[in-house]
Amino acid sequence: MEVVQVLHMNGGVGEASYANNSLVQKKVISMTKPIREEAITKLYSTSFPTKLVIADLGCSSGPNTMLVVSEFIEIVSNICKKQGNQSPEFQVFFNDLPGNDFNTIFRSLPRVQEKLRKQMGGGGGPCFFTGVPGSFYGRLFPSKSVNIFHSSYSLQWLSQVPEGIESNKGNIYMASTSPPCVLKAYYQQFQTDFSVFLKCRSEELVAGGRMVLTFLGRRSDDPSSKECCYIWELLAMALNEMASEGIIEEKKVDSFNIPQYTPSPSEIKCEVMKEGSFGIDRIEVTEVNWNAYSDEFNGGDALQLQLQDGGYNVAQCMRAVAEPLLVSHFGEAIIDEVFNKYSKIVADRMAKEKTEFVNVTISLAKTG
Amino acid sequence: MEVVQVLHMNGGVGEASYANNSLVQKKVISMTKPIREEAITKLYSTSFPTKLVIADLGCSSGPNTMLVVSEFIEIVSNICKKQGNQSPEFQVFFNDLPGNDFNTIFRSLPRVQEKLRKQMGGGGGPCFFTGVPGSFYGRLFPSKSVNIFHSSYSLQWLSQVPEGIESNKGNIYMASTSPPCVLKAYYQQFQTDFSVFLKCRSEELVAGGRMVLTFLGRRSDDPSSKECCYIWELLAMALNEMASEGIIEEKKVDSFNIPQYTPSPSEIKCEVMKEGSFGIDRIEVTEVNWNAYSDEFNGGDALQLQLQDGGYNVAQCMRAVAEPLLVSHFGEAIIDEVFNKYSKIVADRMAKEKTEFVNVTISLAKTG
Repeated sequence: MEVVQVLHMNGGVGEASYANNSLVQKKVISMTKPIREEAITKLYSTSFPTKLVIADLGCSSGPNTMLVVSEFIEIVSNICKKQGNQSPEFQVFFNDLPGNDFNTIFRSLPRVQEKLRKQMGGGGGPCFFTGVPGSFYGRLFPSKSVNIFHSSYSLQWLSQVPEGIESNKGNIYMASTSPPCVLKAYYQQFQTDFSVFLKCRSEELVAGGRMVLTFLGRRSDDPSSKECCYIWELLAMALNEMASEGIIEEKKVDSFNIPQYTPSPSEIKCEVMKEGSFGIDRIEVTEVNWNAYSDEFNGGDALQLQLQDGGYNVAQCMRAVAEPLLVSHFGEAIIDEVFNKYSKIVADRMAKEKTEFVNVTISLAKTG
Repeated sequence: MEVVQVLHMNGGVGEASYANNSLVQKKVISMTKPIREEAITKLYSTSFPTKLVIADLGCSSGPNTMLVVSEFIEIVSNICKKQGNQSPEFQVFFNDLPGNDFNTIFRSLPRVQEKLRKQMGGGGGPCFFTGVPGSFYGRLFPSKSVNIFHSSYSLQWLSQVPEGIESNKGNIYMASTSPPCVLKAYYQQFQTDFSVFLKCRSEELVAGGRMVLTFLGRRSDDPSSKECCYIWELLAMALNEMASEGIIEEKKVDSFNIPQYTPSPSEIKCEVMKEGSFGIDRIEVTEVNWNAYSDEFNGGDALQLQLQDGGYNVAQCMRAVAEPLLVSHFGEAIIDEVFNKYSKIVADRMAKEKTEFVNVTISLAKTG
């Protein structure tokens, strides 16, 4: 779990260099809002709980941490206002690995609570915020204690690098040139991890409880499809270039692999059906440009030009997630050069083709 | 609340200079164990909950943070083992102000959980640990959601310095020379704060829920009694000395006051009866030496001699709690000198008289 821990720690720290990463996630959150809106509305309107327990899994500690939770609270509060019901009490659990910066989340809470109070004009129910450190590939909550789980852009991270992928030489993730046994090992790790996840959450949810999960994923049935693997292939190119220049060892590159799996809608569905505790309400695929700034700016000043430098933005976005993994494998010294090279490679490809992340969002309800 | 926040942040950071502070608290926790043991045993044996929710209020982030919670879990697990019952699931909430170092608590949890698992030989129920940032002088949990509250050495801190104590010149806390209106203002602040505390907790506890609370307190009915105020009077002496030397302004000393109230058993009882939600099961007074090392060492090497230097140890203990307050009022520059002077004054007094902290522990059960 160590690698995943490091990743989560850095997945949303909100520093300037990570801005594109945050913006990508913010766009995804915005695009998937209707799915969450439907889920929380159904949840509230069928059970009218006096206490509504919301858990956000893989919450990170960046500018997006509060978005979804605030949205859930607002939606329920508005339903209550319309129907003249008393609002439930909200208990919110922010979860991430123990290495996540919970202090930053907690210190921002008084401001968030104040904002929520203002938004709801004093009519909302009380909100109690808590932090839960631990891996979501294990139990995090008592049985039947949570009403709704949310997770965005976390479940593509595996609990570990799959075993038995020594033959994935020259690649750092699944790629078109990966041997079939590598693709199989990655898929099996995803199946194991996601089925454990589903089992744990089904135990923790109350009857009628719900989940809305967004994965970084793919449309294609081919796990080495360009839509999910290309961005890592370009990083492998940068590393291989440095190996050929003698800056890093070739066998170091061969033994480096990313603990991620970007599943297709049917692979996700398949695990849900196998596990058996959940009914699928809705499953949707969305896309977001690699360069989240691409739709944001039209101006001409220096900052905006820099922001419009897609290669740089995307390299920074990937740096936010990949740097801790690279540092622990290759050491600190090579990092700037890796991302310099990567930035140029990415810029070149982005000029020639359409480059998007694919997101798969699934809305589930606990059955029985 | 800012002052209290700073205090809690530093109340148990576990650095070398704070060792005596931690040791004092550890001794108090050890002395009061029978009271907690009785409370948790009664709680479990009358309700047999399948989920046991424990909240530690003012948990800090030092070496003692896990002690009481681990003890509760062990006691219940042992009862279950003896009776052949299945252990409940434990959900533990660590509470302190948002400025507390929750990251340190969370990062120590995997080790703590491993230790608990070993202690219970695999037979214990699952334990889920969470953090709750916020002041306990307000609601922290949903209604009827907690089985037992614990708080040790936190409730003597007031939510603010009492208003209307401008006449407390030359003193920094209640003192034998404080005007009656100052004593009254301190007492009223305690009454307000503690009654809010009781009301909030009674709403949060399930039927039959319990609380065990330990205050730094006093035996005497006189709130300016030496047993609770002397240690602050000696600090005031150090500050007044520095004012007479022109190092700090006299009026700065006059306007500095400690937001604490060290209640007597009857004052605590009185608020509990007025609030009306709780029955008193037990109330006990214990003492612990100002210098917690005094019973610990008999040896002769340098470290032990230094540790046996009571004045130094006690000054360091008080520094752990008072430094943030002093820094925010007087600035950083004077701190070393304050505690140098204080250390000498304390050493002198300790050589001449018995010096102890008085602790009041109350065990309560929610009625009705």
